[in-house]
Amino acid sequence: MSKKTGKQSFVLPSKPRIISSGSFVGSKEGEGPLGKRFDTVLKDDTLGLDSWEEAESRMLESAVRLSLAKIGKKPDDIDFFMGGDLLSQIIASGFAARELASPFLGVYGACSTMAEGILIASMLTDGGFSNLAVCGASSHFSSSEREFRYPLEMGTQSPPTAQRTVTGAGAVAIAGEGYAGEKSFYHIAVSGGTVGRVCDYGITDASDMGAAMAPAAASTICACLSDLGAEPAYFDAIYTGDLGSFGSELLFELCGNNGYDISGIHHDCGCMIFSKDQKVVCGGSGCGCCATVLSAEILRRLESGEHNRILFAATGALLSPLSSLQGESIPAVSHAAVIERIGI
Amino acid sequence: MSKKTGKQSFVLPSKPRIISSGSFVGSKEGEGPLGKRFDTVLKDDTLGLDSWEEAESRMLESAVRLSLAKIGKKPDDIDFFMGGDLLSQIIASGFAARELASPFLGVYGACSTMAEGILIASMLTDGGFSNLAVCGASSHFSSSEREFRYPLEMGTQSPPTAQRTVTGAGAVAIAGEGYAGEKSFYHIAVSGGTVGRVCDYGITDASDMGAAMAPAAASTICACLSDLGAEPAYFDAIYTGDLGSFGSELLFELCGNNGYDISGIHHDCGCMIFSKDQKVVCGGSGCGCCATVLSAEILRRLESGEHNRILFAATGALLSPLSSLQGESIPAVSHAAVIERIGI
Repeated sequence: MSKKTGKQSFVLPSKPRIISSGSFVGSKEGEGPLGKRFDTVLKDDTLGLDSWEEAESRMLESAVRLSLAKIGKKPDDIDFFMGGDLLSQIIASGFAARELASPFLGVYGACSTMAEGILIASMLTDGGFSNLAVCGASSHFSSSEREFRYPLEMGTQSPPTAQRTVTGAGAVAIAGEGYAGEKSFYHIAVSGGTVGRVCDYGITDASDMGAAMAPAAASTICACLSDLGAEPAYFDAIYTGDLGSFGSELLFELCGNNGYDISGIHHDCGCMIFSKDQKVVCGGSGCGCCATVLSAEILRRLESGEHNRILFAATGALLSPLSSLQGESIPAVSHAAVIERIGI
Repeated sequence: MSKKTGKQSFVLPSKPRIISSGSFVGSKEGEGPLGKRFDTVLKDDTLGLDSWEEAESRMLESAVRLSLAKIGKKPDDIDFFMGGDLLSQIIASGFAARELASPFLGVYGACSTMAEGILIASMLTDGGFSNLAVCGASSHFSSSEREFRYPLEMGTQSPPTAQRTVTGAGAVAIAGEGYAGEKSFYHIAVSGGTVGRVCDYGITDASDMGAAMAPAAASTICACLSDLGAEPAYFDAIYTGDLGSFGSELLFELCGNNGYDISGIHHDCGCMIFSKDQKVVCGGSGCGCCATVLSAEILRRLESGEHNRILFAATGALLSPLSSLQGESIPAVSHAAVIERIGI
């Protein structure tokens, strides 16, 4: 039986449940508007380890363990851990997977990784291939700066379009129909999603990711609405991650060109995680941004009944430091999950 | 209905079909024992483009297009392209996906990427989420050398345990029950698989990948046999990719410790692609090695009836240049697909 609807979207008849989450963030994220929502705010973003990369991996591992501890489970109880991050060869996830010792499926969609993981894990759950799985994603300001931009020691100033990579890791546990164990969330299900196409509007400025990613977000959100035959009001909220303030304006314009006005229901995880007085220019970014905002805040809004149905549309820029040096423009992709509040 | 069998394995009741494949390789691979099997052997491994990275991406895009052209399809006809490669932020795949303009799911498992992609795509197909999908993976000797080792211009000598990264890209088209179009292969189905755990035996020598990856291959192969309740003879052949000659010896020993003698049915894609007189030390490696050997040779052996059932166990080393410089050991993962010959 086909569960496809339209060209890029699908439905999940069994509605896999998001039953738990875990979030770890750095101190600056902890000082932001969502500070009290995160499970753990680190005082030392190295966690006392030898490198920021090791610290990022440990955060991701810890977010996964925490999401499982909340429901009385251990890494050995899951069918697989699906993870990804911004570091070359996704080492934060690979090394976290080594410590967790669960079966591991590595995914990469830059800052869309969390949504990609949730889509794939939900489909695998609906298909009967998983009873309990965890998806996670991470980023770290200091590991990203030296991966993508400049050594921190240079003290480079940010241009006005720049976003700040979030130090954080988020993880969600996804359960199938056969799951009968403890739950931390009782009311949250993934009911469908849209797999994104890669869009490239020719932006070459790696400090203007919002503009590079907005076309991908618009493409996926419009495809989702079109495939479902729905208007934006079908959703209580559309969350993007992470266009920042510049990119969000561009998103409204592009969606408007397709006849969809989403400005009234749109929130951007990159704009939610920091306040304007935190001097982060255009907001947060990185795999860990929407992963932690989803894990700590969006899911809470669904569980509490504040939202009944949302679209979680994470967006990633598929550049590398090398592709930028070689003069390539920045392709981007966005994946979107339809997440609903359901009865117990 | 759960399709899980044992702790890490699963079955695919609808047996998704591999209906086509495409392979592009470099000239050295073309001079090897499988030279005549590949669809295209490049004379110029830059394809006349400005960089090896761009050339790698073009090869991958071309392998996908070719696998579709053989069955009269275009990239717009597929539900998604699932791809990955060794470059930072998997840019070969991301840029290929931009050109293909199909929905894109990026995966990363180092040299196990092709098997990971086939496992996920087959599960999504069995689950009703795809009617036609393409999985691909690529690597390029020259882009990998500068990504992981030394600039080619240095003329560094290879140590005796080294393998040579294959210049090549392979792609397979996977169809679901509802697919009624043309086929290039009629007899090949994916009937199950095993998702690997990350293993780390503390190897730190990035020129001895075979030793780092053999424990992961042994772990997954033994898990598969145990989950299926089968002996090695259940398979006509077990193909690993890419342990090389040193790593293969270690694999036999580790499987033997678990009571499984696989030496009589084992083949390693890294040993198949080059002959000993090609001076490649321990054989081929890279995402493109097992991807092209599968696409061009293993599938042919199944289609022709030479094999009735094989295990395709690709193995990846989850290191990065940075993790090695930071003194980390090399974790590895192996994913295995059960591929069978079936009636039309």
